[in-house]
Amino acid sequence: MTKKVLVGLLLLTGLAVFSQGKLIHTGEISGYVTLKCDFHTHTVFSDGEVWPAFRIREAMNDGLDVLAITDHLEYHPYKDYFAEDDNAAFRVAKNRADRNNLLLIRGTEITREMPPGHFNALFLNDSTVFEDTTFMKVMEKAINQGAFILWNHPGWKGQQPDGVARKYEIHEKLIHDGWVHGMEIYNDSEFYPEVMAWCLQDDLTMIGNSDVHGSTAEVASSRGYDHRVMTLVFAKDRSIKALKDALFAGRTLVWYGDTIAGNLDMAEPFVKSSLKRSSVHHETNKHLYYRIENPTDIPFFLTHGENPGAPKKIKLRPRSYQIIRVKKGGDQTLVYTVSNVKIDARERLKVEL
Amino acid sequence: MTKKVLVGLLLLTGLAVFSQGKLIHTGEISGYVTLKCDFHTHTVFSDGEVWPAFRIREAMNDGLDVLAITDHLEYHPYKDYFAEDDNAAFRVAKNRADRNNLLLIRGTEITREMPPGHFNALFLNDSTVFEDTTFMKVMEKAINQGAFILWNHPGWKGQQPDGVARKYEIHEKLIHDGWVHGMEIYNDSEFYPEVMAWCLQDDLTMIGNSDVHGSTAEVASSRGYDHRVMTLVFAKDRSIKALKDALFAGRTLVWYGDTIAGNLDMAEPFVKSSLKRSSVHHETNKHLYYRIENPTDIPFFLTHGENPGAPKKIKLRPRSYQIIRVKKGGDQTLVYTVSNVKIDARERLKVEL
Amino acid sequence: MTKKVLVGLLLLTGLAVFSQGKLIHTGEISGYVTLKCDFHTHTVFSDGEVWPAFRIREAMNDGLDVLAITDHLEYHPYKDYFAEDDNAAFRVAKNRADRNNLLLIRGTEITREMPPGHFNALFLNDSTVFEDTTFMKVMEKAINQGAFILWNHPGWKGQQPDGVARKYEIHEKLIHDGWVHGMEIYNDSEFYPEVMAWCLQDDLTMIGNSDVHGSTAEVASSRGYDHRVMTLVFAKDRSIKALKDALFAGRTLVWYGDTIAGNLDMAEPFVKSSLKRSSVHHETNKHLYYRIENPTDIPFFLTHGENPGAPKKIKLRPRSYQIIRVKKGGDQTLVYTVSNVKIDARERLKVEL
Amino acid sequence: MTKKVLVGLLLLTGLAVFSQGKLIHTGEISGYVTLKCDFHTHTVFSDGEVWPAFRIREAMNDGLDVLAITDHLEYHPYKDYFAEDDNAAFRVAKNRADRNNLLLIRGTEITREMPPGHFNALFLNDSTVFEDTTFMKVMEKAINQGAFILWNHPGWKGQQPDGVARKYEIHEKLIHDGWVHGMEIYNDSEFYPEVMAWCLQDDLTMIGNSDVHGSTAEVASSRGYDHRVMTLVFAKDRSIKALKDALFAGRTLVWYGDTIAGNLDMAEPFVKSSLKRSSVHHETNKHLYYRIENPTDIPFFLTHGENPGAPKKIKLRPRSYQIIRVKKGGDQTLVYTVSNVKIDARERLKVEL
Repeated sequence: MTKKVLVGLLLLTGLAVFSQGKLIHTGEISGYVTLKCDFHTHTVFSDGEVWPAFRIREAMNDGLDVLAITDHLEYHPYKDYFAEDDNAAFRVAKNRADRNNLLLIRGTEITREMPPGHFNALFLNDSTVFEDTTFMKVMEKAINQGAFILWNHPGWKGQQPDGVARKYEIHEKLIHDGWVHGMEIYNDSEFYPEVMAWCLQDDLTMIGNSDVHGSTAEVASSRGYDHRVMTLVFAKDRSIKALKDALFAGRTLVWYGDTIAGNLDMAEPFVKSSLKRSSVHHETNKHLYYRIENPTDIPFFLTHGENPGAPKKIKLRPRSYQIIRVKKGGDQTLVYTVSNVKIDARERLKVEL
Repeated sequence: MTKKVLVGLLLLTGLAVFSQGKLIHTGEISGYVTLKCDFHTHTVFSDGEVWPAFRIREAMNDGLDVLAITDHLEYHPYKDYFAEDDNAAFRVAKNRADRNNLLLIRGTEITREMPPGHFNALFLNDSTVFEDTTFMKVMEKAINQGAFILWNHPGWKGQQPDGVARKYEIHEKLIHDGWVHGMEIYNDSEFYPEVMAWCLQDDLTMIGNSDVHGSTAEVASSRGYDHRVMTLVFAKDRSIKALKDALFAGRTLVWYGDTIAGNLDMAEPFVKSSLKRSSVHHETNKHLYYRIENPTDIPFFLTHGENPGAPKKIKLRPRSYQIIRVKKGGDQTLVYTVSNVKIDARERLKVEL
Repeated sequence: MTKKVLVGLLLLTGLAVFSQGKLIHTGEISGYVTLKCDFHTHTVFSDGEVWPAFRIREAMNDGLDVLAITDHLEYHPYKDYFAEDDNAAFRVAKNRADRNNLLLIRGTEITREMPPGHFNALFLNDSTVFEDTTFMKVMEKAINQGAFILWNHPGWKGQQPDGVARKYEIHEKLIHDGWVHGMEIYNDSEFYPEVMAWCLQDDLTMIGNSDVHGSTAEVASSRGYDHRVMTLVFAKDRSIKALKDALFAGRTLVWYGDTIAGNLDMAEPFVKSSLKRSSVHHETNKHLYYRIENPTDIPFFLTHGENPGAPKKIKLRPRSYQIIRVKKGGDQTLVYTVSNVKIDARERLKVEL
Repeated sequence: MTKKVLVGLLLLTGLAVFSQGKLIHTGEISGYVTLKCDFHTHTVFSDGEVWPAFRIREAMNDGLDVLAITDHLEYHPYKDYFAEDDNAAFRVAKNRADRNNLLLIRGTEITREMPPGHFNALFLNDSTVFEDTTFMKVMEKAINQGAFILWNHPGWKGQQPDGVARKYEIHEKLIHDGWVHGMEIYNDSEFYPEVMAWCLQDDLTMIGNSDVHGSTAEVASSRGYDHRVMTLVFAKDRSIKALKDALFAGRTLVWYGDTIAGNLDMAEPFVKSSLKRSSVHHETNKHLYYRIENPTDIPFFLTHGENPGAPKKIKLRPRSYQIIRVKKGGDQTLVYTVSNVKIDARERLKVEL
């Protein structure tokens, strides 16, 4: 193949020009940047259906700052055609990620029957050393590489036939020994309420990942949303080091569909920074009028308003405002339950505007 | 009709709950707020097809800060059913606008054969005094009320059959006497390049209006866009007084479809504030990599890049970024023509990022 | 106003060119055409927000064959500006409807406190004779004009504060005497399960109407759908006479969002005509493969598949197909519950493909 | 890897349930079925970015009946990781295609510098025999396998720097000897007017292909359309044999964006079957009113109406109708140029409705 044809082909495939990305506007937490992350994706190097370069471009189109490619360590269904090289996907993708300002995390999915199930080890140096050994040995090596380790889809019906997440003895041990640092409370559209409770109880980091094998566009479209599930990480700056620190410190929220899930310490300032209440713009004998703004790309559904002179519900779609009125003479505080912000398996965030 | 049924009907029509609006994110000019305005709309009080309350709600849904209802002074096709009261539309709409934080301008469309054609008088106190008199008398009364007066659709084929805007003697006189302060360079999807040249030459304010009679949603959909044409006004604050000052001072840009049009003094800082160029995020032997961000709702199409080591074109869709690379060792300045920003009938804005 | 300006204005408003409409593809019932109908809409002649011409164009854009304008007989909130003429809306709209091939029904909404509530009388000759008299007298006059009369939103919270539809003595009498022929089981997004049961029991026609006051586009968008609620009427031909016959004969289904509701005799052939099962296109040792097509604009969600060798669920989006496989050697019949087709308050249609 | 985990993974990847497809409604030509086809796509087996299974699912989602995977014969940029097996993509995809009722064509892209450029050979038995030999030898072997051969993107700027398609001596010889049977007049969004003229002159089959390397969804979105470019083939039945016959007989049209392109014999009956003119539905003193329907998914833009008493232009969006009126007393024929149907490089189809 001569160079001349090669250049032609590159032009043809148009890869050079697909370097655009989406900007997502979310709330913020003071002192941190909000990194949009997906820590669980697959490529043709395990059982995914796309080449790593596709994942990079897709991540940019989806507005991500951070992507982990986490091919299965033990499962290579295309091995008749493909080298079984657990470092390959990262090696192929790294340069393209760097050029495009996407933070690419080297990871792997340790893929075992339940128990223990599937685990993602992130921030690795070398995946090849994990091959052909026992689960605990792999985990040990990953820990020695300084990995952040998360338990994937603990309630997945493929491994928990009744759909209820259940901890086995080995999970208790892993958590106790500090060998598991986080858990997926969302895997694509699946939510595991039990896992959210465990994370709160044991101070584990809550994660939401796409686990995409095909394309996120087709998954999002089938779910009826315009974005993939993602983990919002609140990091000191936009770097892999700061990201890793934030993950170990548990500074995350999960965004799936219209829902935000995470602990109170993250959810409250995040939502408060998303919503703005104006001063009074109009006044009648009986009422004062305010404007509530949500300039972000995430909707907020306020319910159970506690002020009897104000609306019971306020629906704040992305990039919209609502006009509300409050009875004069009484209390002007506005306290609402945010029905799409989960701070526990069953509890919803309460905010004062 | 008892009060009980009345309350029920209000609930039924749901008018009380349609108080949401859209937030549009655009560039800014230092020292000013960017008001989104439409100064030319109709209701059933002339030949429009909607009640004034519909126009209010629609304006909010379209992200407007300012609306003028400008029913025809001399044309009342529904008069068999309707009172011919030129103050009525404003009176009906005012309270609803105030409650909803929309700045409502009292206006009228003086509607004559060409010459002189159609004119909008804005910021009036009383429209009834204009009835049944000569054109020049109406204009004088409007000027006496402190009106801002604009010439509507000067190139409209209904009055300029060859589609070319043409000034008659009366227009020269009106401009000379200061009785016309602005002109529509856009009326819905029609653009009048000659008018843009006149505005630049005579220091008149450039305006773009929807002139909507039905609904802006159906018009936008038929045009293939998701927003109505609007005038962006750069005002000291969000008040009718500041708006009026800004209009008389000519601080406007017009946004139609993907196009921004206006004078250089407004267009340049507006576009510069819309686009952000990052510092270098990646470096190879030959290239430096930058990220260009457009967080606004308006696209910018950069062409004719003057740096031979950088891309010739950069397409910045709304709320997106592009990764670009620039050859090392040479000039790192990035100067582009913004092909969708008109600063004269034929000239396009040039910016340095 | 000279004729010359008038012609110009008509050009400007563009009314002449807005004569397009949408084609909706639905199932059919042998021997009938499927007419898409809305029998409950308002204009500025009562408390609606649009001129009758707007309703015509909107009906075409929404794919309707039939529109009834049913302004409130007793409620004219704009009467300070507007003539109270209960025949006016029809008179204004009739010619435009005829030109555009839309079947326009003359109707009125008899608007009383509960009991009896609100009733639509359709196919009238003259609405003015109803004014200023008792409810029963109005009903008698409507019956004498051959009207088809439906009880509107029987469970509307504005008149049934607990949200449960409830029949009073007067309703029993009206039904017994044959003065009520149908009921709204859907009013916009509200569904009244009790009313569906009454209709089945007393052989009344089931109707779904928009009751639109603003625009259907804004309502549909707020509901998350791309179409208004409508009544599908199965008529011998596309004429007002055939439509009226079909209504009195009860040949209707209601389409709201993703849901179809009506009696078994209509629902079953309608759904069967919507879905096509191919012959076997592929065969393996264990399975036969079929293709199930839904070429219509209405989705069908098949659940509770009764064949243990076939899929439990099949989701047939509008204009899509699904590939399914069935175990060989066993039964090849495919019987499903159509979970989005209601044939009673709680019962769903069952079909064999 | 135990079977238990494997089943789990299949569930996880969800491949089993992605078996839906889109139904596209187009015009028809009497005696034939309209097959929607893409004869030029890539996978990871050359320089594409997706696994063959992705191409199958994508083709179904795009409404295709026929897909050819045509990986480059001579270009394998991923060969460090991947077996260079030119039969592999087909082998991997065939079973999945069969199950899903998609006609999968075995093909290859013969990839040389210009001249001769790139050629797709379709309907092959074995691609491996082509390796490591001269261009003419490959072509001879393909012809001996009964291949249908098309010249890809003859005007592609990667090989024709001035963007003009140009025939070299070798192309004249291939055409003369019957070794080239068709040409791409469209390759994705590129149109080659010269090539259309050559096809008409030499009776070659006109083809439009996506040449997709990433996903068609991202390409379509960047083009502003909701469908990929495709070739419509008019075949006796939905089989590979009938498809091949139709291709050799030249029974094709190309659909890109809003444009249809092909020869008159195909375009005319295709468009006529797409549009329906009703009988008169309304009559005034001066005019007769008709309804023109386009129930298909392809728009038609009628211009240059030849009847002075009828509209000059009629815009028929997909699944829509238009109401038109024609002056009484004169001719009622309606002859239009269909401005989006190309029957030659410059000529547009003319139809009588």
